[in-house]
Amino acid sequence: MRGLHLTADLYQCRCEPRWLTDAEALGDWTRQAAEAVGLDVLEEVARPTAEDGSVTAVLVLAHSHVCLHTWPAQRAATVDVYLASSRADMSAKARGLIYALVNRFAPEWTEQRSLDRGTEGE
Amino acid sequence: MRGLHLTADLYQCRCEPRWLTDAEALGDWTRQAAEAVGLDVLEEVARPTAEDGSVTAVLVLAHSHVCLHTWPAQRAATVDVYLASSRADMSAKARGLIYALVNRFAPEWTEQRSLDRGTEGE
Repeated sequence: MRGLHLTADLYQCRCEPRWLTDAEALGDWTRQAAEAVGLDVLEEVARPTAEDGSVTAVLVLAHSHVCLHTWPAQRAATVDVYLASSRADMSAKARGLIYALVNRFAPEWTEQRSLDRGTEGE
Repeated sequence: MRGLHLTADLYQCRCEPRWLTDAEALGDWTRQAAEAVGLDVLEEVARPTAEDGSVTAVLVLAHSHVCLHTWPAQRAATVDVYLASSRADMSAKARGLIYALVNRFAPEWTEQRSLDRGTEGE
């Protein structure tokens, strides 16, 4: 099991406001972005999470997940892409996907981190 | 928006094997553990993700998520607890929950990390 976990916290997002409040649109778009980098999405959850319009989109993949949470009042969002596999190196797909997800929100600034997870050969 | 993201990668788990393969049991138990620390679970997904018995449990919470992925062939699992809020400091709940989740699997060793996410006052 080896995996790459990328996190991105996005501020002052300049995207159309609906991307921060329309759960269905965000969920659909996130799934399409994952499929575009060759990922097999097993399940998708996209729903409002608070009265201020905040939404969450989650994709479940084998041993892996993608989670987005929006904060429309602050024009902010958080993004997680964690891809793991016992066979393939998923890092190129993880980097490609988070790049697409971050760009969707057009943030003025971001804080991004990268965690190598798991052990090689186990 | 401020949040604490805790990750734990668990190896050589000595728990009953069913905790690594029974999606329904793991999902129910994870939800109960989250509720026990006072969290409001909005949605739960618990499902098999591969033919080797691997399962995933995901809890969706406001601006937050809990994700577990198991690797039964390796007796391994990964756990994420990311709790964020614009009002309350969620770090005690995050630490309490990941402690409970890690202990459920009784790993011989773990690799755990802690990420402070978000900006104070925004």
